[in-house]
Amino acid sequence: MAHHRSDVLAHAVTLLDTHGLAALTMRRLGAGLGVQPSAIYHHFASKQELLAAVADEILVRGARPRTADEWPDQLREVCSELRHAMLACTDGADVVATVWAFGLGAAGPVAEMEKVMADAGVPDELVAVASRTLVHYVFGHAFEEQTARQAVRLGAVERSLESLPDFDLGLDLVIDGLRARLA
Amino acid sequence: MAHHRSDVLAHAVTLLDTHGLAALTMRRLGAGLGVQPSAIYHHFASKQELLAAVADEILVRGARPRTADEWPDQLREVCSELRHAMLACTDGADVVATVWAFGLGAAGPVAEMEKVMADAGVPDELVAVASRTLVHYVFGHAFEEQTARQAVRLGAVERSLESLPDFDLGLDLVIDGLRARLA
Repeated sequence: MAHHRSDVLAHAVTLLDTHGLAALTMRRLGAGLGVQPSAIYHHFASKQELLAAVADEILVRGARPRTADEWPDQLREVCSELRHAMLACTDGADVVATVWAFGLGAAGPVAEMEKVMADAGVPDELVAVASRTLVHYVFGHAFEEQTARQAVRLGAVERSLESLPDFDLGLDLVIDGLRARLA
Repeated sequence: MAHHRSDVLAHAVTLLDTHGLAALTMRRLGAGLGVQPSAIYHHFASKQELLAAVADEILVRGARPRTADEWPDQLREVCSELRHAMLACTDGADVVATVWAFGLGAAGPVAEMEKVMADAGVPDELVAVASRTLVHYVFGHAFEEQTARQAVRLGAVERSLESLPDFDLGLDLVIDGLRARLA
């Protein structure tokens, strides 16, 4: 049975969301589609390439409308969308942060933050620093929240989810740092 | 052969550093020590408990002297020590961030940052926000750096390591946000 690339990708996202990152292998993906792993490699040359496509699909599915006018709110929209997109899929934070680190995908949020800041007249060097700082904050926060929620749901740990730190308060602290630099 | 808890823990850190997080299983740990997995469970009641001990051991091994007098530099010392401790062991960022998310260990850096800020007269609510924001930034940055370096070393990706963002510049942006709140 032949499959389109989009079918393979959709199945990969379902496999990830249902069974987690450890289950996302070319072998298991092939088995789920009733094909040999080689048929998967026809569409995705490597596991890294597959992961990159999965990460970008997670971001596409989490896309939200933009409504903010001012750069601080525009940055908040990008960061909030990224966070929610990752949290919406099992191990989504791990996958998106890994693909970003590989330099193979998940580049949309940082590119959009760079544009928001450049349009607001933020100097280039500060744009580079602030966009990376923001994305690292979002990744770190989402990784904690997702890891904690998944482990509690599985009964693996007993941590109180009430103790998860507020996302917006930390985000505003970073934005205030950027604002202070521009003052 | 009987093993002390410290022997099992040391072997676990070596296993992690040599083969990565996926290889750190109770079965493999037992095989390396020549004992049944049950002998490992005698010292560590669960995989989560073992991971927590490994994370804390990674932090103990990365401990550095404290020399700073002012709170911004004291925060930098804590964050820099945390970063370097995680980078010194394969998958160290993943392990330490996971254990922090489980609420089972790796709590030292946040506790120390809380104390630094409380001693400096930072209000309680801001101490809570800033300590979490800083630790999420450090986790996010270290995860990118370690994932990129390990993947490049294995030949899995070709990303230029020159493009890794500077740690201190981002850290200073968050600290500036805190400073702005205190002004």
